[in-house]
Order: sequence, then C-alpha cells, then structure tokens
Amino acid sequence: MLPQSLAIADLGCSSGPNTFFMVSEVTRTVKKLCRDLNQQSLECQVFLNDLPGSGFNNIFRSLGSFKDKLSREMVSGVGPCFLSGIPGSFYGRLFPSKSLHFVHSSCSLMWLSQVPEGMENNKGNIYMASTSPSNVLKACYQQFQRDLPLFLQCRAKEVVEGGCMVLTFLGRRSDDPFSNECCLIWELMATALNGSASTGIIKQEEVDSFNIPQYTPSPSEVEQEIVKEGSFKTHRVEVSAVNWNAYDDRNIIGSEFSESEVLSDGGYNVAKCMRAVAEPLLISHFGDGIIEESFQEVPRDLNRSYVQREN
Amino acid sequence: MLPQSLAIADLGCSSGPNTFFMVSEVTRTVKKLCRDLNQQSLECQVFLNDLPGSGFNNIFRSLGSFKDKLSREMVSGVGPCFLSGIPGSFYGRLFPSKSLHFVHSSCSLMWLSQVPEGMENNKGNIYMASTSPSNVLKACYQQFQRDLPLFLQCRAKEVVEGGCMVLTFLGRRSDDPFSNECCLIWELMATALNGSASTGIIKQEEVDSFNIPQYTPSPSEVEQEIVKEGSFKTHRVEVSAVNWNAYDDRNIIGSEFSESEVLSDGGYNVAKCMRAVAEPLLISHFGDGIIEESFQEVPRDLNRSYVQREN
Repeated sequence: MLPQSLAIADLGCSSGPNTFFMVSEVTRTVKKLCRDLNQQSLECQVFLNDLPGSGFNNIFRSLGSFKDKLSREMVSGVGPCFLSGIPGSFYGRLFPSKSLHFVHSSCSLMWLSQVPEGMENNKGNIYMASTSPSNVLKACYQQFQRDLPLFLQCRAKEVVEGGCMVLTFLGRRSDDPFSNECCLIWELMATALNGSASTGIIKQEEVDSFNIPQYTPSPSEVEQEIVKEGSFKTHRVEVSAVNWNAYDDRNIIGSEFSESEVLSDGGYNVAKCMRAVAEPLLISHFGDGIIEESFQEVPRDLNRSYVQREN
Repeated sequence: MLPQSLAIADLGCSSGPNTFFMVSEVTRTVKKLCRDLNQQSLECQVFLNDLPGSGFNNIFRSLGSFKDKLSREMVSGVGPCFLSGIPGSFYGRLFPSKSLHFVHSSCSLMWLSQVPEGMENNKGNIYMASTSPSNVLKACYQQFQRDLPLFLQCRAKEVVEGGCMVLTFLGRRSDDPFSNECCLIWELMATALNGSASTGIIKQEEVDSFNIPQYTPSPSEVEQEIVKEGSFKTHRVEVSAVNWNAYDDRNIIGSEFSESEVLSDGGYNVAKCMRAVAEPLLISHFGDGIIEESFQEVPRDLNRSYVQREN
C-alpha cells in the first residue's frame, strides 16, 4: 500500500536551472505509479538540500513559475507537491528518523566534507595531479573513505524501511586515480592559476595552499564503502560518460542552449562549466578580483587539450 | 505517548533576530516535557515559513551559530533539531496532510493575502483612516473574513488530530475599527507620504494608489471567524498591549539594545519599527529612492503624537 504522502530529498540540489529537474522527474514517475495502481492522488513533500550559503533565495523565487508549470503538466494523478529548503551538510543528519521515502543526490558526493589534511606539499597543483606527492592521493582517498560512510550512516537513520536512494557521483571508469577522466580538468585550471601567479595577479603561495575538496571515485571504490558500511544494498550500478562541454551533445534539439552558444568553441564552454563549479571556492580563497582574469586564460589551454582529445 | 519526532511550523517567521525565538522557546518546552515524562529524547523538525522573497539566505546563514547556541543550552532531554525553510503564502497549503503537531504564527496574520479590491477612493490615506470612505473599512474587513478562514482550512488539513496552534495577531482591543490603537501609526505615515508628494519627491497619484494590505482585528472578530470556520476550538484568548517604541520597555536590562538607542527619542524608534514593517511594501510601490527622505519626516510627526499620548 502506498503511503498518503511521499517524502523525497534532493541532497546537494544546487541553485540553478537544474534544481527542479529531479522534482519534475519524480512527480512524473509518481503520477505514472498512481495511474498503474489505480490510486487517485499522492502528496509529495520535496526537501531541497544544499549548504546554507548556496542561494536558496534564488530557488525559492523561481518556485512559483515551476509550480505553475508542474500543475499544468500534472492534470491528475498526483496530489499537491510541497517544496522546502533544507540548509546543511549532507555529511550530518538533516532529517528526523525514518522520515524519507526516497533520496536523490546528483553530482554532489564527489565533494568531500573538507580539504583533506596533509595536502600542504601539493604545491602548484590544486587537486590530485600526476605531479602530486604520493601522500596527496592517500589523503584524498582516506577523506572519501571517512565521508561516504558518514553520509550512508546518516541516511540509514533517515530513510524508512523499504525506502531507497539514487546517487550519482562524478567519478571515473578507470581504477587509476590519476586518470585524465577526472584530473585533467583541474590540472588545466592549475596551469591557469600558476600563470596568474607568474604575472603577479595572485600570489604563488595562494595557489600552493589552494586545493579542491573533491574525490572522484571509481565504481568499485563506491561499492566497497557501501558494503563496508552495511546499511544499504546496491541494486544497480551504472557508468555513463559525461561531456565536460555541456553544449557538445549531438542531441541538442529542444535544449535551452542557443545556437550561438552551441556553436562557440569547446574550450570556452568547458571553461564556463568549470567556472560554475569552482567559482565559489576560488572567490573564497583568492577574492573575487581574480576570476575574470584567471578564466580568460583557461579556454585557450582547454581548447588546445580538448581538440587534441577529440581527434 | 509522545511521537518519536515533533513537527513544528512557524508561519510568517520573518528574517531577523526574532526568527529563531520560537524555536528556542519550543525546544526549551519540549526539553521540560521530556524530563517530566521521563522520556530520553525527542527529535524536532522545525519548518520556518515566509513568502519566497523574504530573505531565507540570511536565516540559513545564521543557522550555524543558532544551532551551536541551542546545543550548548540543550545538554540533554531533547534530540536533534532539524530546521527547514518553507517558502509560500500561508493562505494556501504548505504541508502534507496530518503532518504538523504544532503551528505558531506571530504578528503575521494581520497581513491580508492582498490589498482588498475597492479601495480606489481611499485617496491620501494608506490604510483605514478616520477620513476613509465607508467602503474602505468594508473592503478590508471582508478580505479578513475571506483570508482567516482560508488559513484555518489549510491548517486543519495539515495539523494532526490533537495538534494545536498558537496565533498572535497584531490587533486592537477596541471594537472600533478606526481605533488609534492600530490606525494612528499608518495615518502618520500617510502624512509623511503626502508631505513627500507635496514637495514633489513622489507623485500624489502614487500615494493615492498605495494601501497597506492589513487588517488588525479585535479579539471577537478573530473568534467569530474561528467559530464560523469550525475546524478548531479556541482554548484561550489573551490580549496584551505592545509598545510601538520597541525600546520603551521598562524592563530593558539584558536586552540587546544599547543604552544610547534606548535613550534616543521615541519618535525615531517608532519610525524605525514602522520602517522595518513597511519598507518592502514602500520600495515595491514607490521605488527605493524615496525611503530615506520619507522616513526623515516621520520621526518628527511621530514624536509630536507620541509625546501627546504619553502625557
């Protein structure tokens, strides 16, 4: 029997055009489910979670138009959808015990809870790079091994029996943690930042002390932690490639990108994508003065690398 | 038997130093209750609601320090407290059916869902004033008679059986709807705005078309609507006087106001209080250019009136 109301959480929902994507998908699925089960309506309570500083005002202001769109689409079969914002780190408890039916997290769990300790000697790099000392990889991996189980423990308390989670990681197919799949993009940004330091825009010490708090795991590394922690069973693991150039999808018909954006050069697009991800971190470390200048260099370097890889 | 988790909503929580006041009070009460019932711990899920544009980022950013303070105070007896933001009008559904144990709303229900229709001839006034045409009072009261039952109907669906609400209205003791208790303050602001119009800072048509969407009911008007709507029973009605000059409390020891603020003139303080309430409405109607100039005139007028009333 279905409950009267479904409680759904999106952890690391971000603040932008994708924020409501999960809600749309879930309500569409719930609608289909209600129809198949011949049930009249089902209320959904959707909790959108992200860090307290991540721009909830923007999300909440666009809620009205999203709800209008949703109610036009959902003529019948799904009850009202109640949205709320949950500020806080998903590496801690966010919800009462046994209160969630479905948890979703997309491209957020590669963010570690903090920059791992012991990365002081990762000079000139901003992530695990091929030139990083061996302790850097160890520090990142160990932080991941602490963080993911913590996430699972918290969710195990919050999810009802029979509830489930869909987690999407930005990760790598390869078992090599220095694989270009995940490291190249940050090596290129490190090159741009080192360039800015050499021209005096920022200080070299600032670049040396900057590290991206990320670990992009392989599928087997994720599975190991899930098995070790023991609260959840893995039903399905899927690996799919994501193009760093968001506009370079062959299937762009009906997308929200303008033709001019799609046709512009790949390096520029990838740099925009990186900027969306890294800008808050860069601003809090370097101040907001350097952003324009640093990112001016990135597209050129990226374009060179991007074209090489495409060929 | 107590539930494992209490769901508590503060409707119209605003964004400022008072926002967390209710949460503190409720967790303190829950702690006492747990101790009295010899129960170990109780989780609280607190929903802070206000309109989507009301500054949730500020609330969420100050959450960390509030939770630290709370956990220092609550050494034992109360479980974790999970806070969330619920954007939307409380004149519509905000929560799933039967999901709330306790609802609180302080000084918010005097706000109507909209400026009542039929107030076009309320020229030179911005609220029900002694010089307002008779249809103005009727329009405001009828809007209140539509809005409060709507609020009650929504909450009746959301509150569990046995749950309860504590609602605080900014209202009047008198049965006279034009009583100075509620109207004087807006008449003084209207005087200031008319003054700004006469010196050309704003247009007279803009003042004429501006109305505050408020109705400050008497206790009996509130009770009538509760009885008519029929979902809730009134357990207790209390009336207490609130000083418009927030600093003019005889008991200011330990308050967060500095001595210089307390000792400054009453009119200035009341103007600040009015400004906090009315500024968003004024800005959206007149633009943000006029605020400083308009409020410069208010303290003088208020001081005159304030001193007259004190004597």
